Amino acid sequence: MDNDFKQLLFLPLGGSGEIGMNLNLYSYDNNWIMVDCGISFADEYLPGIDLIMPKIDFVEGIRDDLMGLVLTHAHEDHIGAVVHLWPQFRCPIYATPFTARILRAKLADFGYLDQAQVHEVPLGGSFSLGNFDIEYVTLTHSIPEPNALNIKTPLGTIFHTGDWKIDPDPVVGMPTDAKRLIEIGDEGVLAIVCDSTNVFNKKPSGSELGVRHSLKKLLKNKDGAVFCTTFSSNVARVETLGYVAKETDRHLCLVGRSLKRNVAAARECGYLKNFPAILDEQDAAHLPRHKILYVCTGCQGEARAALMRIVQDNSRHVHIANGDTVLFSSKIIPGNELSISRMHNLLIEKSVEIITEKDAFVHVSGHPGQEELKQMYEWIRPRIVVPTHGERKHLLKQSDFAKELGLKKTIVPKNGAVVKLAPEPTGIINEVPSGRVALDGGMLIADDDMAIIERRRAMFNGVLVINAIMGSGTILKAPLVITCFGLPNEGNKRLEKFIEEKLHEALDLASKKRTTDDHVLEELIRATGRKAAKQFTGKETGPVTSVTLTRINQK
Amino acid sequence: MDNDFKQLLFLPLGGSGEIGMNLNLYSYDNNWIMVDCGISFADEYLPGIDLIMPKIDFVEGIRDDLMGLVLTHAHEDHIGAVVHLWPQFRCPIYATPFTARILRAKLADFGYLDQAQVHEVPLGGSFSLGNFDIEYVTLTHSIPEPNALNIKTPLGTIFHTGDWKIDPDPVVGMPTDAKRLIEIGDEGVLAIVCDSTNVFNKKPSGSELGVRHSLKKLLKNKDGAVFCTTFSSNVARVETLGYVAKETDRHLCLVGRSLKRNVAAARECGYLKNFPAILDEQDAAHLPRHKILYVCTGCQGEARAALMRIVQDNSRHVHIANGDTVLFSSKIIPGNELSISRMHNLLIEKSVEIITEKDAFVHVSGHPGQEELKQMYEWIRPRIVVPTHGERKHLLKQSDFAKELGLKKTIVPKNGAVVKLAPEPTGIINEVPSGRVALDGGMLIADDDMAIIERRRAMFNGVLVINAIMGSGTILKAPLVITCFGLPNEGNKRLEKFIEEKLHEALDLASKKRTTDDHVLEELIRATGRKAAKQFTGKETGPVTSVTLTRINQK
Repeated sequence: MDNDFKQLLFLPLGGSGEIGMNLNLYSYDNNWIMVDCGISFADEYLPGIDLIMPKIDFVEGIRDDLMGLVLTHAHEDHIGAVVHLWPQFRCPIYATPFTARILRAKLADFGYLDQAQVHEVPLGGSFSLGNFDIEYVTLTHSIPEPNALNIKTPLGTIFHTGDWKIDPDPVVGMPTDAKRLIEIGDEGVLAIVCDSTNVFNKKPSGSELGVRHSLKKLLKNKDGAVFCTTFSSNVARVETLGYVAKETDRHLCLVGRSLKRNVAAARECGYLKNFPAILDEQDAAHLPRHKILYVCTGCQGEARAALMRIVQDNSRHVHIANGDTVLFSSKIIPGNELSISRMHNLLIEKSVEIITEKDAFVHVSGHPGQEELKQMYEWIRPRIVVPTHGERKHLLKQSDFAKELGLKKTIVPKNGAVVKLAPEPTGIINEVPSGRVALDGGMLIADDDMAIIERRRAMFNGVLVINAIMGSGTILKAPLVITCFGLPNEGNKRLEKFIEEKLHEALDLASKKRTTDDHVLEELIRATGRKAAKQFTGKETGPVTSVTLTRINQK
Repeated sequence: MDNDFKQLLFLPLGGSGEIGMNLNLYSYDNNWIMVDCGISFADEYLPGIDLIMPKIDFVEGIRDDLMGLVLTHAHEDHIGAVVHLWPQFRCPIYATPFTARILRAKLADFGYLDQAQVHEVPLGGSFSLGNFDIEYVTLTHSIPEPNALNIKTPLGTIFHTGDWKIDPDPVVGMPTDAKRLIEIGDEGVLAIVCDSTNVFNKKPSGSELGVRHSLKKLLKNKDGAVFCTTFSSNVARVETLGYVAKETDRHLCLVGRSLKRNVAAARECGYLKNFPAILDEQDAAHLPRHKILYVCTGCQGEARAALMRIVQDNSRHVHIANGDTVLFSSKIIPGNELSISRMHNLLIEKSVEIITEKDAFVHVSGHPGQEELKQMYEWIRPRIVVPTHGERKHLLKQSDFAKELGLKKTIVPKNGAVVKLAPEPTGIINEVPSGRVALDGGMLIADDDMAIIERRRAMFNGVLVINAIMGSGTILKAPLVITCFGLPNEGNKRLEKFIEEKLHEALDLASKKRTTDDHVLEELIRATGRKAAKQFTGKETGPVTSVTLTRINQK
């Protein structure tokens, strides 16, 4: 890195290249702060992996200069990696009350509650970390207490938006405080580091209150039980569903652990004041069906969530039946299309009415579309726009959009890019190691760890393990041990027999050639076994193959 | 099955429960015919599998009574399984010229061309198979020669739609022949067996000519090279792109094997008469970029298709660069969202303009929306509506939709359901075995074959193979051979060492207890090894584990 430390630097390690696993660093004069520390979900390229998060080798090098981790809000893609990565840097953590509460529950699960200092900052509160004077500026999003950070430094102010939208009626929390944002703009902002998720959206995202009116209409006069599923952390939506339950003369019942956790945390923080009494599942089962509104986890068709358990008749007290209504108050997260479609088919099989975003107005996004971005730029008037929180296409689009609006300077980072925000000349000046690590069981491993590569190979091509127990030369002292996994066998170990025959032929030939070197024999067995498996199955690529030759001494 | 053979039966073995792998049977008085024989694509639930198709154990039982396989059109989900399943029933095949040509190329690839009789029937032609008098009725869709079958039987006429839409300007082929369809209705139709794919679509699907006008406008005045990608079999779209190339003063170049195959087949059948000359890739590379329009395979972001090769700079002659335009004249097939999104990000990284269905009118569907279904019912006036070609939700929706329109009788089948169409009482009267088989390498295996289950387990949890070479009792005659795949190891075989230690402890204990039974020892080794792997990795489920104990005689 450059040795001139009197530079104001921005360095994303996650979230600039994907929607998920946000982790951003700022630095000035040897002081570093981290903003957010989130996870993302693995796709089928990482078999056996659920969670991924940023690789933070770089952070270990600046650990002594890291003044704090500042969390913007409690979504998993902003706080989910804390319990996994915090042991690598162990700095104090700052959060507003709701976020702090959700985080503490996670820290407790992982046994870090006593070790990690979590400083609770009130909404609108300020604090300093070295050269950084940080103010929490509450915006609106799809979770309680979504905060931007107004970060004052000796070289200028950074407005780090976090996740946001402009919601005039957010239902839970206050609407966007335009006055304060204009003030911040008046004070002069060097750079806005800004959410790009919905930059392709030309329409405004809509207000939570609008969803409330629509859901009330949609769920009026339903005969059977009503099931609503949404994102667990969307407390405003849950509040809306409580309101709809009251208005449609139904009792409310929450199903799913994360939902209950979020509702409890919200209540402890003083939200959900007008929420109706919550029935437990057992009591709800005694009511007439037209008297119940269930709120369930599982809007993405997740295999382990409440709605899937219910539809597969694996829930003890909650049953779904002909004439019920299931409302998905959510959007389809890209990648979940097939699991959601499967869920729909299961529901339809039960003659249940399904209402989704395709049928009616049931959801609003929590991220800014173009109109909102424009409004924010007008309020904040930044000299530099740095798009984050998006795939490459989203970041480049926000850059183009900002330029179209006359904002002259944009810098589009990638994870690992060291962005100099001040002094001039600004831009990407360096690159540090970045990447992803995967949580495999309890271990953090590289996303190209041999374990993952081998699993991917095994999942396509199967596994072949051969053990040969030999005396001297090519003399077998016991039958060859051939173990196949994941290879079509036509029953009765036909494949193993086929491989064994080919191996005996190869060993006979080796014997005639007086081949005795262990490595040569192992390689001969490996190549012969692999080729035989390919020949038998007709697969283009042979199985992952391992051979061990064990010599038993002749006595 | 019922012994009264004077029944008219419909029996779907594929396509009634999924969009894909269509295979339908009709029977009357011991005569059977098969309509279509298609494949589907596997999802991540079937690791290592590309293609799936219907399980046809039932067909083997009626093989001697199977008069013919009648193909409606050349899409893979209607003809793709012929080369894999035909050896199981070996009946004559009937198809119109374009379909026959595409099929013959496939049969030649698999060495069946000399064995399979493919009868070419002209468009509008008729033929008889036992009790079935079959007429090809050309409709419109998204491939040349999409045919419905008008099947006359002693107990009434079945109108089997195949895939269709109502396109007043299909560009290739004739528009829908309303007059003939009304005539068929006048003659009296017992049952329509009808495509359900787009039944949720309230808008008409739009005409191919409309796409032509839109593409011409969109691709006018582009500076760099233009790349268009679409479905290879959509010959009308390719014809349109040839027209657009001429109109925008560009030369046409086709990239991708399946595209060239379809264009060649279409030309041989007399289509594409006004198509411009096609440049090969090498010649196109010499032209100024603003003079080329490439048509490429790969609209779904497929890893091996032309567009992916080009964007990853793996194409020898075709290069993509800043200022070029890529137009996706296609829709996103559910399940391909992530691969398409990856492709978009790769393109954007190259500063290429992307145009998709989200930005402009670039594609029309080939399946009937509600307006078209209504029109077809009005023409055909069937007594019974049998929805096929769809997931459960699509079939049930078509049934509801038909009932709303006043059609009184609908029967919603599942794969394997034996539907009695006549005489009364009609309905599902029986069920035969159905399901899916998977093509694994060159072998057809059940979709729950152990090979697939093991691969799925290995892909999540890895593999552990232990070989113990023992003399008598628990005395090891050689070091334990421990082979791990797909387990996080932290390098240097730490996991293997950990497992080995635990195994030695367990064997010591077994020795003290004088355990000598081979099965008991194998199970002890298996359980100990698996538990050690779980403990080391923190994974909830242990690896797929196999143990072999080899006894070496003490001499």
